[in-house]
Amino acid sequence: MTPGEPQLDLIFTLQCQDQPGIVHAVTSAILACGGNIIENQQFTDPESNFFVMRTRFATQVGKVEAENFLNVELHKFHPTTSLREYSQKKRALVLVTTESHCLRELLFLSELEELPIEIVSVVSNQLHLKGLVESHQINFIHLPLATIGKEMAEKDLLKLVADEKIDFLILARYMQILSENFCNKLSGQIINIHHSFLPGFKGAKPYHQAHARGVKIIGATAHFVTPDLDEGPIIEQDVAHVSHAVSPEDLIAIGRDIERRVLAKAVRLYAEDRIFVVGQRTIIFN
Amino acid sequence: MTPGEPQLDLIFTLQCQDQPGIVHAVTSAILACGGNIIENQQFTDPESNFFVMRTRFATQVGKVEAENFLNVELHKFHPTTSLREYSQKKRALVLVTTESHCLRELLFLSELEELPIEIVSVVSNQLHLKGLVESHQINFIHLPLATIGKEMAEKDLLKLVADEKIDFLILARYMQILSENFCNKLSGQIINIHHSFLPGFKGAKPYHQAHARGVKIIGATAHFVTPDLDEGPIIEQDVAHVSHAVSPEDLIAIGRDIERRVLAKAVRLYAEDRIFVVGQRTIIFN
Amino acid sequence: MTPGEPQLDLIFTLQCQDQPGIVHAVTSAILACGGNIIENQQFTDPESNFFVMRTRFATQVGKVEAENFLNVELHKFHPTTSLREYSQKKRALVLVTTESHCLRELLFLSELEELPIEIVSVVSNQLHLKGLVESHQINFIHLPLATIGKEMAEKDLLKLVADEKIDFLILARYMQILSENFCNKLSGQIINIHHSFLPGFKGAKPYHQAHARGVKIIGATAHFVTPDLDEGPIIEQDVAHVSHAVSPEDLIAIGRDIERRVLAKAVRLYAEDRIFVVGQRTIIFN
Amino acid sequence: MTPGEPQLDLIFTLQCQDQPGIVHAVTSAILACGGNIIENQQFTDPESNFFVMRTRFATQVGKVEAENFLNVELHKFHPTTSLREYSQKKRALVLVTTESHCLRELLFLSELEELPIEIVSVVSNQLHLKGLVESHQINFIHLPLATIGKEMAEKDLLKLVADEKIDFLILARYMQILSENFCNKLSGQIINIHHSFLPGFKGAKPYHQAHARGVKIIGATAHFVTPDLDEGPIIEQDVAHVSHAVSPEDLIAIGRDIERRVLAKAVRLYAEDRIFVVGQRTIIFN
Repeated sequence: MTPGEPQLDLIFTLQCQDQPGIVHAVTSAILACGGNIIENQQFTDPESNFFVMRTRFATQVGKVEAENFLNVELHKFHPTTSLREYSQKKRALVLVTTESHCLRELLFLSELEELPIEIVSVVSNQLHLKGLVESHQINFIHLPLATIGKEMAEKDLLKLVADEKIDFLILARYMQILSENFCNKLSGQIINIHHSFLPGFKGAKPYHQAHARGVKIIGATAHFVTPDLDEGPIIEQDVAHVSHAVSPEDLIAIGRDIERRVLAKAVRLYAEDRIFVVGQRTIIFN
Repeated sequence: MTPGEPQLDLIFTLQCQDQPGIVHAVTSAILACGGNIIENQQFTDPESNFFVMRTRFATQVGKVEAENFLNVELHKFHPTTSLREYSQKKRALVLVTTESHCLRELLFLSELEELPIEIVSVVSNQLHLKGLVESHQINFIHLPLATIGKEMAEKDLLKLVADEKIDFLILARYMQILSENFCNKLSGQIINIHHSFLPGFKGAKPYHQAHARGVKIIGATAHFVTPDLDEGPIIEQDVAHVSHAVSPEDLIAIGRDIERRVLAKAVRLYAEDRIFVVGQRTIIFN
Repeated sequence: MTPGEPQLDLIFTLQCQDQPGIVHAVTSAILACGGNIIENQQFTDPESNFFVMRTRFATQVGKVEAENFLNVELHKFHPTTSLREYSQKKRALVLVTTESHCLRELLFLSELEELPIEIVSVVSNQLHLKGLVESHQINFIHLPLATIGKEMAEKDLLKLVADEKIDFLILARYMQILSENFCNKLSGQIINIHHSFLPGFKGAKPYHQAHARGVKIIGATAHFVTPDLDEGPIIEQDVAHVSHAVSPEDLIAIGRDIERRVLAKAVRLYAEDRIFVVGQRTIIFN
Repeated sequence: MTPGEPQLDLIFTLQCQDQPGIVHAVTSAILACGGNIIENQQFTDPESNFFVMRTRFATQVGKVEAENFLNVELHKFHPTTSLREYSQKKRALVLVTTESHCLRELLFLSELEELPIEIVSVVSNQLHLKGLVESHQINFIHLPLATIGKEMAEKDLLKLVADEKIDFLILARYMQILSENFCNKLSGQIINIHHSFLPGFKGAKPYHQAHARGVKIIGATAHFVTPDLDEGPIIEQDVAHVSHAVSPEDLIAIGRDIERRVLAKAVRLYAEDRIFVVGQRTIIFN
């Protein structure tokens, strides 16, 4: 690199059926645009033979030119690819109902510049968190499902996603079920936090069930939303040890702490293009 | 304490319905026998109002005399109690089939004097682990279920328990289902290691199911055996984080590592009289 | 307990040289005031023979009457004791400089009612965090050390502690050294968060040192402040695993996450009267 | 790959100054020998600009042919490389004194086929562990330092390393200091387990120091041995939380458990060619 010249820091991702020569083609393209690899990770799922790759590289050519070099080398593999500047934050819509702990953690971390996302708006079917959101100078949108109906609400959301160039939705304890149509339209773009590790206690009041069963560990799971409720590809899970002395209410409080941590971790992974969905599973380049 | 005089180190446990004055009565008895409390833990289950207590104390009177003092103070509460010398190791029977990892960990730790149990014999329905057991100078008993039948085998086991004054059984990957009658006769005296955290994947090949589901955490559970398979009171659980890159075979290996650790921990808790069963749950004084 | 009658929920703590009969005396007093033990923990430090005890009990007599019963039974042991209502929150003063992560966590958790403290005021030698504090409707006090001098600043702080009946100070990344006199006056009442586990890298830029040394684990320590800088009794520590790929800046960010968690945990333990200082060590009843 | 044809599974590692084209060259060579990448990891140390890479690939050509392809592409970068069959176990010499816990863990895991090493011999300056070693059908060598002197002992060890084609030495609680000359001759080939995390308590009886200081976490560190005692590049560290209730003897027991786990993990990483030393630090491809 010529000293003083500006360098573009790019993140490239690729997915396709595995076959000989893909990595070679990517590195040919990067070499061709005078690039230098900063990070590179790849994985072939042995069951599906599906190949995924994430490469961060610095280059002195522009993004469009880099894209051309990559296309020339890679088009024969018919891959799904993405290329973006490392510094460009993903745009998020956060959906909440009344509980604030996950939302607060996202606000906290993005304000500290520890989570590379831009929270464009917070949407809720309730008004409880309006004050909190606006005190952080973030736009609050009230979508009163009970009044306007779910169909209309989802239409509004999809319009918002399009208008505001939203990259992904974060369900931060959003206690509403999304329609199959909505889930499919935003497949792989909606992250939910589930108050259990999966498989877990099914049905209502999971922490009360966990207490009754006398478990010594509770957990939470962040996953992509699919039409199958709580069955989407798992992104991140974590747990805490609990003793006999904790009440169901204590479990809920401990659970809140795990939930906010796990959701924030999943959002960070997404924001940094580290998650790939292959079938029902995720490949995570940590 | 008069210098030079021998002190008896005793562990006392008590369980009964909670009512005012129990702790006071225990401490009265200990005071009466010139004792000094070394450890004391207690808990009242808020749902059942059941009270459990574990007290370790040093005294210059004998064990029988201490027992009398305790009975005098406590008989009005109709408690279930136990009193034993701290240095007296619990006698264990280990049941195995073909897998060695849990058995090896138990042998390892008891030989290092890090697990206060005496492994009286190892029983197996197979011959695979005979050499390993005998190389540790421990008695190996072959109970060929297929030949003698389960009923006869359990009869032999119960006789062994009685003859050898066995305190508890450890199912160290013993791949046989015990009869309801057997489970009930040794209720709260059989510890099993389950290759999942509970609730977990039901049915065969749990690690393959976990892999297919793409979980990011796997775990193991040590629990008391009850006639309801894998549903007995949970003693200890632990987990490990796993990535997309691990195969089902890797999961099994990681699982083995968690299993041996969790089982050893549960056995230690039992050996030190730290576990109390209240309904479907355990109280653990760690 | 007579149904319908109000119950007082009290936390009692006691410290003194160990001797026979202390637990018996406490339980006698609780029995005398018709009380019921909810939680009880005790420990005798084997080196110093110092005894500490924490008992939470419900009673139908008033707090003053309970205190009398306890004094009658216990005065012969000359213990240090405390008695307070469980629901009465400890009053905290939080000291900060410019970094917000620890302060934010304390605000976050106390607002969620997950940390039983009342943050009376936030004091800083800088103005950076004024807006944040006031947006949470909490009093911000600017103590410009450079202008008024450390001696005057500490005088003001001590007056504030007295006037506002402050129970303890939280140094939430307060980058100033307190005088020996100040530390001694508030001995056992000032909690600091240290950006390392102890013993750790001495001197400036510990995260850069940790990076240079290639450590695989970093940590943080919450401790009481004593005149010996960073040498006070340790309350809580935690760590995170780190890889070769993290930069010193990443370590600082990961460190921030551990720091806020560890400090919040220590504050919770203090707020619930679970910490006892014996010599250079703490006894923690978790 | 033609069905039925044998595939060679190879591990290739490379280290050199970073420069454009290295990954491209490696993938060109693998493509040229009809290979398929199974795993690939790389890292450039930003401070030294040193590049390291580990690639596992399957190929139908022989190992020598693959080596030739790689040399042709890579010689211009003057890298340090290694190439070996994945299934070929590294040959280890284990050095012990009297403590058995680390040795037992290595025997345990290698017998279970969970650690891909071949323990060629166990060497000790004492005779305590002879029986244990030989009961596992492993050669025990007594090197009585006190009699033959350290210089002669190290000469014997170096001869053994050469004669037996030993890949690396494991100091499994070997309580002897190796000479500077010996350390340098086997640089990057000797793994030690240190009973502390680093930086830690210096000098004798670290667990007693940790107890006196009242730490809430203890740890252990596996590192390469260099002439600077306990200052070699860190491979792996882990910790355990401890409470006030543990004695120095308990700390030692807990420490043993961490030590055996950390050492086994470091040995596994080494055995799988996942460790690269760059300056004072290690790059670990997990």
